[in-house]
Amino acid sequence: MSLPLAGVTVVDFSRILSGPYATMILADLGAAVIKVERPGRGDGARALPPLKDGKSAYFATLNRGKRSIALDFEDETDRALLDRILARADVVVENFRPGVLARHGLDWETLHTRFPALIHASVSGYGQTGPDAKRPSYDAVAQARGGMMAMTGAPGTPARAGGSVAELAGGMFLAHGVLAALYDRARSGTGRRIDVGLLDAQIAMMEQAVTQAAVGPAPEAAGTRHPLIAPSEAVAASDGPFVVSAGTDAQFERLCMCLQLPLSDDPRFVDNAARLAHARLLKRLIEAATLEHPRSYWLSRLTAAGVPCAPIQDMAQVLKDPQLMARNMIVDVLDRFGRATFKAPGNPIKISGMEDRPARPAAPELDGNRADILRWLGDG
Amino acid sequence: MSLPLAGVTVVDFSRILSGPYATMILADLGAAVIKVERPGRGDGARALPPLKDGKSAYFATLNRGKRSIALDFEDETDRALLDRILARADVVVENFRPGVLARHGLDWETLHTRFPALIHASVSGYGQTGPDAKRPSYDAVAQARGGMMAMTGAPGTPARAGGSVAELAGGMFLAHGVLAALYDRARSGTGRRIDVGLLDAQIAMMEQAVTQAAVGPAPEAAGTRHPLIAPSEAVAASDGPFVVSAGTDAQFERLCMCLQLPLSDDPRFVDNAARLAHARLLKRLIEAATLEHPRSYWLSRLTAAGVPCAPIQDMAQVLKDPQLMARNMIVDVLDRFGRATFKAPGNPIKISGMEDRPARPAAPELDGNRADILRWLGDG
Repeated sequence: MSLPLAGVTVVDFSRILSGPYATMILADLGAAVIKVERPGRGDGARALPPLKDGKSAYFATLNRGKRSIALDFEDETDRALLDRILARADVVVENFRPGVLARHGLDWETLHTRFPALIHASVSGYGQTGPDAKRPSYDAVAQARGGMMAMTGAPGTPARAGGSVAELAGGMFLAHGVLAALYDRARSGTGRRIDVGLLDAQIAMMEQAVTQAAVGPAPEAAGTRHPLIAPSEAVAASDGPFVVSAGTDAQFERLCMCLQLPLSDDPRFVDNAARLAHARLLKRLIEAATLEHPRSYWLSRLTAAGVPCAPIQDMAQVLKDPQLMARNMIVDVLDRFGRATFKAPGNPIKISGMEDRPARPAAPELDGNRADILRWLGDG
Repeated sequence: MSLPLAGVTVVDFSRILSGPYATMILADLGAAVIKVERPGRGDGARALPPLKDGKSAYFATLNRGKRSIALDFEDETDRALLDRILARADVVVENFRPGVLARHGLDWETLHTRFPALIHASVSGYGQTGPDAKRPSYDAVAQARGGMMAMTGAPGTPARAGGSVAELAGGMFLAHGVLAALYDRARSGTGRRIDVGLLDAQIAMMEQAVTQAAVGPAPEAAGTRHPLIAPSEAVAASDGPFVVSAGTDAQFERLCMCLQLPLSDDPRFVDNAARLAHARLLKRLIEAATLEHPRSYWLSRLTAAGVPCAPIQDMAQVLKDPQLMARNMIVDVLDRFGRATFKAPGNPIKISGMEDRPARPAAPELDGNRADILRWLGDG
């Protein structure tokens, strides 16, 4: 079987994170991605730390397996070449601030008139509409304004979720839009315009907090505690914390059995709503038991009993996690000589008939695939 | 224009969050979703707090506009009915633990033999393979094991990202897989199997942390600070913190101008790498200026100067944010009489020709659409 997106060509004007993450997902599903970069420095992510042998690990990860051509939107020869690329492409992805592409005659309206089947996908800080559409933004700005920071960390001490969740969610929703538009175009023959904002994407990741805030009382940051399930948080063993999350009555009963705690008939803990109302007390009672033994003792006992639990792993531990190894979720990014250089997250979308390779081709040099691309256009 | 997924029917066995979030995305794009629930209690999310007039706000949000039929997998009549539904469906979505569906003859292998065009999408705690495949999990477990908790919060005090980012990312990647398989099936005629694990999804959201940890030094939790961009964090104004994120040299220069700080020629702050190396010092210098005035003063000045910045909004503020209002990102969920009941996040995927409705139909009553579904099958 071929890759699900075999034959799909994506022209990618996007830089840094949200757009490149979307096109990485599409590339992992089989699309051919052509990065169109500005001559000279190219994608700003090429300079982001950490560097190894002068190459950005960050850039290498997000752009693995894509091709690159450097084109100046203002140069006549380059524009003619870009038009020929667009005429053969299925999708264009961009994350400029709204209005920038219009200055170059590359906005949706213009491109849709010229190439009616082309899908045009935009991700920007605030989306293409609304009072703040033209403002610049980044992940941290979206996390702050979108409620994620206030909901994260200890109460009263806002924290950033430890990954760029707003930018990545923006890229993920953009990829949904592109995929839905590709499916639709197979029937209609016409391309659509996708418009995603990082702030919108952040809100869409706050589903329970939005709902809770509207019903009241508004939820607050609560360390490791889950807002709607109890017990679900970090508890202390003799040598440090681990996470236990007993979402069903049966799991809670098994937890109590493991801890030799006679709680499951107590009316204060009889169902999740009752446990949630007494979550602070419940944590103390659990810890009175768990403090007696180290984490490894509890993790193996709880695992054997079918109670959801986990160590709080740092990134060094994550890189060696046997389940992640078995799932091919830490892959090697190769250099152009085929040598392993960087580690990167693998593809979380496993699909039958689609090979899940343990290594990925290198990210392109700036303008490194001009000759290939000319050949593909028939100039080779 | 019709909705991109018009005509697509999704049969949804999934419960609580990750699967229902995936089918909510598909429903927002135009798919018809039939929830198949166990008789009696149905989806466990129907009981999750907060409740309003006896209805779960959580369930109402995630299941808006879907239809429900209650079927017992072990009952012969129900099974015959389910088979007729599956024969007419395009996609089946489920989030049981691996092995559960096989006991009912509803696993991928069996269904693929009987219905070769049916796409089968599974999301589970650890995916369908690997040593931990059969273990139960939840969002908190995936966040802990996948590195998110250790990377979030103040150094040494792990925190949960304040939204169920692992479960939601699992649902989002599942939706990517379904959409890619639908596109592919339009050419091949054959369905595929999608397999997503919450732990895998969590890792895929840690892209920069995985890369950094492998190159070294491994990143650590840093409150509101961004690991690769400086300045990008919360800084103190006279009345509390706000977030500023100057990702480019030009933005940093404009920030310095607003703060009347003569730093942009200082070699310690000359580019992002230098600023990152001196991030703690830089924060002090910035705060020496920002502490002189309240947040509103700085937010309006920095906004006018084009420096990315934001207030740290709590959920009550988020619900009234004018940009989110303008983007239709806080929608009403109606009851079956058409009255507004709950607020929920809107659809972040804006697509041309697709109406972005400010209100959404109610979530179904358990078994509330049996008659409709029978009519659709031709029994009406």
